[in-house]
Amino acid sequence: MSRQRVASVDELPAVAEGHGVCWIDIAGLGDHETIRKIGERFNLHPLALEDTLNVRQRPKVEDYDDHLFIVTRMPMNDPEGDADPGSSGPPGSTQGAWSHHEGQLVTEQVACFVGTGFVITFQERPGDVFEPVRTRIGKASGRIRSRGADYLAYALIDAAIDSFFPLLEAYGERVEDLEQEVVERPESGHIAHIHDLKHDLLTARRTIWPQREMLNTLVREDSPLIADETRIFLRDCYDHTIQLMDMIETYREVASGLVDIQLASVSNRMNEVMKVLTMIATIFIPLTFIAGVYGMNFNPDAGPWNMPELGWRYGYPVALTVMAVIGGLLLLWFRRKGWIGGGQRGRGGS
Amino acid sequence: MSRQRVASVDELPAVAEGHGVCWIDIAGLGDHETIRKIGERFNLHPLALEDTLNVRQRPKVEDYDDHLFIVTRMPMNDPEGDADPGSSGPPGSTQGAWSHHEGQLVTEQVACFVGTGFVITFQERPGDVFEPVRTRIGKASGRIRSRGADYLAYALIDAAIDSFFPLLEAYGERVEDLEQEVVERPESGHIAHIHDLKHDLLTARRTIWPQREMLNTLVREDSPLIADETRIFLRDCYDHTIQLMDMIETYREVASGLVDIQLASVSNRMNEVMKVLTMIATIFIPLTFIAGVYGMNFNPDAGPWNMPELGWRYGYPVALTVMAVIGGLLLLWFRRKGWIGGGQRGRGGS
Amino acid sequence: MSRQRVASVDELPAVAEGHGVCWIDIAGLGDHETIRKIGERFNLHPLALEDTLNVRQRPKVEDYDDHLFIVTRMPMNDPEGDADPGSSGPPGSTQGAWSHHEGQLVTEQVACFVGTGFVITFQERPGDVFEPVRTRIGKASGRIRSRGADYLAYALIDAAIDSFFPLLEAYGERVEDLEQEVVERPESGHIAHIHDLKHDLLTARRTIWPQREMLNTLVREDSPLIADETRIFLRDCYDHTIQLMDMIETYREVASGLVDIQLASVSNRMNEVMKVLTMIATIFIPLTFIAGVYGMNFNPDAGPWNMPELGWRYGYPVALTVMAVIGGLLLLWFRRKGWIGGGQRGRGGS
Amino acid sequence: MSRQRVASVDELPAVAEGHGVCWIDIAGLGDHETIRKIGERFNLHPLALEDTLNVRQRPKVEDYDDHLFIVTRMPMNDPEGDADPGSSGPPGSTQGAWSHHEGQLVTEQVACFVGTGFVITFQERPGDVFEPVRTRIGKASGRIRSRGADYLAYALIDAAIDSFFPLLEAYGERVEDLEQEVVERPESGHIAHIHDLKHDLLTARRTIWPQREMLNTLVREDSPLIADETRIFLRDCYDHTIQLMDMIETYREVASGLVDIQLASVSNRMNEVMKVLTMIATIFIPLTFIAGVYGMNFNPDAGPWNMPELGWRYGYPVALTVMAVIGGLLLLWFRRKGWIGGGQRGRGGS
Amino acid sequence: MSRQRVASVDELPAVAEGHGVCWIDIAGLGDHETIRKIGERFNLHPLALEDTLNVRQRPKVEDYDDHLFIVTRMPMNDPEGDADPGSSGPPGSTQGAWSHHEGQLVTEQVACFVGTGFVITFQERPGDVFEPVRTRIGKASGRIRSRGADYLAYALIDAAIDSFFPLLEAYGERVEDLEQEVVERPESGHIAHIHDLKHDLLTARRTIWPQREMLNTLVREDSPLIADETRIFLRDCYDHTIQLMDMIETYREVASGLVDIQLASVSNRMNEVMKVLTMIATIFIPLTFIAGVYGMNFNPDAGPWNMPELGWRYGYPVALTVMAVIGGLLLLWFRRKGWIGGGQRGRGGS
Repeated sequence: MSRQRVASVDELPAVAEGHGVCWIDIAGLGDHETIRKIGERFNLHPLALEDTLNVRQRPKVEDYDDHLFIVTRMPMNDPEGDADPGSSGPPGSTQGAWSHHEGQLVTEQVACFVGTGFVITFQERPGDVFEPVRTRIGKASGRIRSRGADYLAYALIDAAIDSFFPLLEAYGERVEDLEQEVVERPESGHIAHIHDLKHDLLTARRTIWPQREMLNTLVREDSPLIADETRIFLRDCYDHTIQLMDMIETYREVASGLVDIQLASVSNRMNEVMKVLTMIATIFIPLTFIAGVYGMNFNPDAGPWNMPELGWRYGYPVALTVMAVIGGLLLLWFRRKGWIGGGQRGRGGS
Repeated sequence: MSRQRVASVDELPAVAEGHGVCWIDIAGLGDHETIRKIGERFNLHPLALEDTLNVRQRPKVEDYDDHLFIVTRMPMNDPEGDADPGSSGPPGSTQGAWSHHEGQLVTEQVACFVGTGFVITFQERPGDVFEPVRTRIGKASGRIRSRGADYLAYALIDAAIDSFFPLLEAYGERVEDLEQEVVERPESGHIAHIHDLKHDLLTARRTIWPQREMLNTLVREDSPLIADETRIFLRDCYDHTIQLMDMIETYREVASGLVDIQLASVSNRMNEVMKVLTMIATIFIPLTFIAGVYGMNFNPDAGPWNMPELGWRYGYPVALTVMAVIGGLLLLWFRRKGWIGGGQRGRGGS
Repeated sequence: MSRQRVASVDELPAVAEGHGVCWIDIAGLGDHETIRKIGERFNLHPLALEDTLNVRQRPKVEDYDDHLFIVTRMPMNDPEGDADPGSSGPPGSTQGAWSHHEGQLVTEQVACFVGTGFVITFQERPGDVFEPVRTRIGKASGRIRSRGADYLAYALIDAAIDSFFPLLEAYGERVEDLEQEVVERPESGHIAHIHDLKHDLLTARRTIWPQREMLNTLVREDSPLIADETRIFLRDCYDHTIQLMDMIETYREVASGLVDIQLASVSNRMNEVMKVLTMIATIFIPLTFIAGVYGMNFNPDAGPWNMPELGWRYGYPVALTVMAVIGGLLLLWFRRKGWIGGGQRGRGGS
Repeated sequence: MSRQRVASVDELPAVAEGHGVCWIDIAGLGDHETIRKIGERFNLHPLALEDTLNVRQRPKVEDYDDHLFIVTRMPMNDPEGDADPGSSGPPGSTQGAWSHHEGQLVTEQVACFVGTGFVITFQERPGDVFEPVRTRIGKASGRIRSRGADYLAYALIDAAIDSFFPLLEAYGERVEDLEQEVVERPESGHIAHIHDLKHDLLTARRTIWPQREMLNTLVREDSPLIADETRIFLRDCYDHTIQLMDMIETYREVASGLVDIQLASVSNRMNEVMKVLTMIATIFIPLTFIAGVYGMNFNPDAGPWNMPELGWRYGYPVALTVMAVIGGLLLLWFRRKGWIGGGQRGRGGS
Repeated sequence: MSRQRVASVDELPAVAEGHGVCWIDIAGLGDHETIRKIGERFNLHPLALEDTLNVRQRPKVEDYDDHLFIVTRMPMNDPEGDADPGSSGPPGSTQGAWSHHEGQLVTEQVACFVGTGFVITFQERPGDVFEPVRTRIGKASGRIRSRGADYLAYALIDAAIDSFFPLLEAYGERVEDLEQEVVERPESGHIAHIHDLKHDLLTARRTIWPQREMLNTLVREDSPLIADETRIFLRDCYDHTIQLMDMIETYREVASGLVDIQLASVSNRMNEVMKVLTMIATIFIPLTFIAGVYGMNFNPDAGPWNMPELGWRYGYPVALTVMAVIGGLLLLWFRRKGWIGGGQRGRGGS
């Protein structure tokens, strides 16, 4: 197996006539003419070519007798923050880092035709997750060099799917961080983050779920293009998609639970705020009323019933004592209702 | 293949006896007699004709041995804001714009009979999404002219289904706008908009879901009226309905999440309002009480214990200082509880 | 086919021995002896007869080799508001109006035995939805007179199922009314109405769902008692149950959404109330405190620091100005927080 | 068929060798030795015997070629409020009343071996729901005496399942009572009752659901131990489990809806409380402020601008009038906002 | 059957050539070389060996013609609180207690190869739940010594699955404790505990669910490596996983209900707090206003309308009486609204 960069489609025939398996990798879908030519050269079905150009396909597999058409997705390699799909970046650019826009998952479509002796992949843009596969092809030994096109297709799909694991582990950490944040600091600002997380998990689910279906079809359906020993490997790959789905569903459930905690925390917060207000107000409002009463200007000279307390020798201390007693009784009542001791307890537990 | 407008059903026979495929397109269901005549002419099943006139059918396919009866739906072309179904508008009117009443999705039933050599479509009213199909028929070359009635039926169904994509993209934008609105301006008025959106998505789901079923039946069941090569195209069309459903379900999940955010935002809002009230009230209520105490009119002359503070040299400054100290301590306590710094932080994050 | 009212079971044999199809319709289940006799006469299975008397059966179909036992339900015709099932009303009463107790759906069981040449229906009480069927039988022409017992059974089931459409349309209007009410007048009293509606829809669902199952069984299973051409009609009837379920599910989803709107509206309301309280209290509490301070009775004569402001020439205007400034600043702060302008905006949007 | 009480397992052989069907009923699982002996005597599978002793089995049916092992459950007969399962109470005690601990559903396992000519039942404790079956066996005539072991097993399962109907009807009444309570007296204490109800319905569901599965298996699977005519009866029994599930699911849905109503009611309550507070506070806070202002002690002698109002001839009436006007305007504003008239209306509707 | 500890893989052949079944148990996955050698020696599939080393596999069974690869999980034996998977602890350590980190469920992968005459298990670390199996092997009699590798594998899987029962019973107690706590002490701190519980139940579900699938596959699929009599035992084991799932699902539903109760309790609490505040404030605010009015300093000498009440003989008593009457009327109004008596009632029921 050799590796070469060809300048145009016309050079391709020689390659495809070589022995073994020929992998043609087209990065960037801008050059419709070339794609059309390849389609003609390898006798690809026009509907499949149309789907290749429409980069919003769900992962799927379609059996066109003499070739399989497989659509899969991988996390997008996004060098310039330019998410415009369909535009082919400069062909020579090689980026090592996988970005996802401020935590938002963006995926790239990989359309893959598998026939006898050839695999053709169409990527949306240069930069992919297939470097390990290329390395294995480059090495002299290795299963991949001695097997057919179906094994190469498996290796590519496997690379695409495994590239989701680090992303999902990052989501796992985000979930755990949010979980801790929400429980420990039940402030209010987390709800939007939880929503973002759920949105991203939804996107991941939409991407992974049809890949699982696609692999299930590949494993179970009886295409002569897939050898039985390759099916064992595809089954393993299928297991990986189940693991991914399992992670996603778990994170989604935990994230949903976080919304409840968050709402309860906000309620608790408010409850506590209200309790403080109520206690302060409930104690001082009656006391202020009493003070207000003795601030009235009824004329004591007009009659013996007009505010005689004002002239008592111990009027003021008695009034203060009455106020203190009322305040104390209210405090006792609050404690009996569990607002003070219980409040402390509840707050400690929250 | 030729295209002509016939004045009455009686002219039809000549057309149908021609070679190739005859497409009879009836726009408007008001003329029951004509419909009955066509039914007799082409030997259509009475139950299917009944369903044709009852425009509230769910999309479905029914196999009547010598013809298939397919019901599909397309977004309604509504020129005068007149949503009265069943009324046939003026036959010559040609509107280019697809309206949906203030964002509300309205669909129109298309009943389609497919037999050997003929396709008959009954639309609720003039104006449809089949113009591209007519254009392709008009062109000299093109697959559509060399294939049978099944391919023409596929082309019509495909046109009907693809006409939902722009609508759903508009919903996608509405979802994103609402998402941003709710997160950025957590005011109260969004809940009704979210409800409207969910209602529309529910309508869309009710329209698309049975189309998916209908196409699945067409692809899988073994009718001699559908050629195998047409099945591949129908499978592609089926994929489109899956994509539509996928979009709808995603939007629905996001919209459901928005309700949570909205409710949480309203709670946060209220929390913040309450915090301000509580702080102001908690600080000033005790201070006002102290002011009230020294506003009491106990007579200092009646005894040495009657409000001696009023006669102290520094009584007033001492009282003000005590008030300031109490206010300061309360502020400190709020800060310790995280209501001031924490409030600022929480508000920033919300 | 003739129609006659027989006085007792003993007269029945003659009828059943006539050519064509014999439909025996028993309205009211009170006369157990008669029912037992009919069972013996037509060789009906004892378990089926037991189910006939127990009027709480779910719709179902059971195949007893020589006859089918079909249970369906129709909306109950309730003349005297007497919902006691099992009681047979006066046999001659003919009511045209279908009532449902204050909006609550009440259904009546129709047990139907279909054999070769006979259909026997047991209704809970007189009054039914089969009048159109009787009319069609009465007419000289019409499919129903030339077909077998299976077609008659179809006609009866179809009448029973179609009688749910007006009820569900009434529910649809109730849903729309509630929707408008809740959005426009977000008062508090709607939650119980929404609950009632959901309860009724649940009842409707419990009634329609098994009818759908029952028809599906009739269409698919291979009973020699059902002719193939009748199956096409049953399939149509099955489509109607799907339409009914579709309506019910949609209404249920919308009703569920209304609970959210209602809760959000109540929260919004409260929010608004709290905002008014907070603004009034927050503005006046500090001002009242200041007024309280200058209401203190510290003796200015006791020292120069004792409330010298009271003796200032412009003390009072200065105090009022300070108060106005504080109030104005607080109002400005509220506007900055969006409580005044924003409140107006939020209220407009709610 | 005769009925006898045997003292020990050794007497059993004679019984089992008799003609017809032998029903051995063991009440209480304490005597492991006896159970082991019976197992040996009838060649029962050790795993099934283990399951018999472990009383937490889910209802199920297992086919051990020469015998069926059926596990079903019935409501527990609990004479002494002793819920300790596995303990065998005094064998002679006969209780007529079915208790369930303060409304909590407790069920008892019935393990049932069905072979050719014998049925062996193991109950957790004495007291069961099989008395009607014993009565039918005791009667001279009756299907049960002329049929095989499979019919007897059916009769026992049927008795066990039918014993759940009165319990579920009691739940139905509880649901309706709670519904009325929650709507009419929207106090706060119902949430725990709703939770208890949901918990009990969950337990009922866990008990009934596998019985449905078990009966479905019995009806559909092809065991030679079950005669075809018995299958018709088992199908009837299966219908009963569907009815039970239907009731349970409906009650569960209604109960879930009640939580919403309850929460909404609590919110409404609070809303009303807040409205009263807000109105009182909003009216009197500004008035109290005005009173506070004229309670200030600025010295009118210090300058003409110091509280000249105090010296006005109509100062006091004017102040009171101003207060009355402010209060009136606020009341008008409340009415305009719909808090007074609207509040009345909203309260009436809640 | 003998039991021995071998020092290296090279000693294994002699063992495996012995008659009967050979069980090789590798505890700790650190020594990759040994694992590779075993793989070669027993001809294990490389993909299965890879999965053995990757300890995050979901339980599953894979059929590699000459051997089955079974992945199961057991609760982790964690002596030093060291949860680092893959590290092999000291081989001689024997811990009797199963810990789970502060209630968090940690499971350990057991990879199990079953071939003709051998069972090979790979545990993540020393310490397992297989001691009872070893004891049974050690005993002279016992089914396990006379059966094949499939029965041994069953015994191991059974031991692994049964080890989850005590854990789930502990969860059951946690659920009940929380239930009682939440209902009896509706404080605020429970929401985080409920979340933890739900999280743990989610983990348990993720562990048990695929074990159920795995056992279902073993029972149903037709591998020559599993004898029919062993299938009966596996079916029993499968029943255990159903029981475990049943417990988990029930606990999850109850836990979800607890969130509702908790939220309702917090609302109730707040309601009660607000009611107290509202009553105190509503009673005293008007009274304080009246006191404030008579604290105004309008000069009675300036005119006859200036606060003549101050000079009345019974002005003060009349004012106090008016205040008492207003307070009493408000209390009466509260009682009429059900806030006092009803509050008591509502509080008792909460």
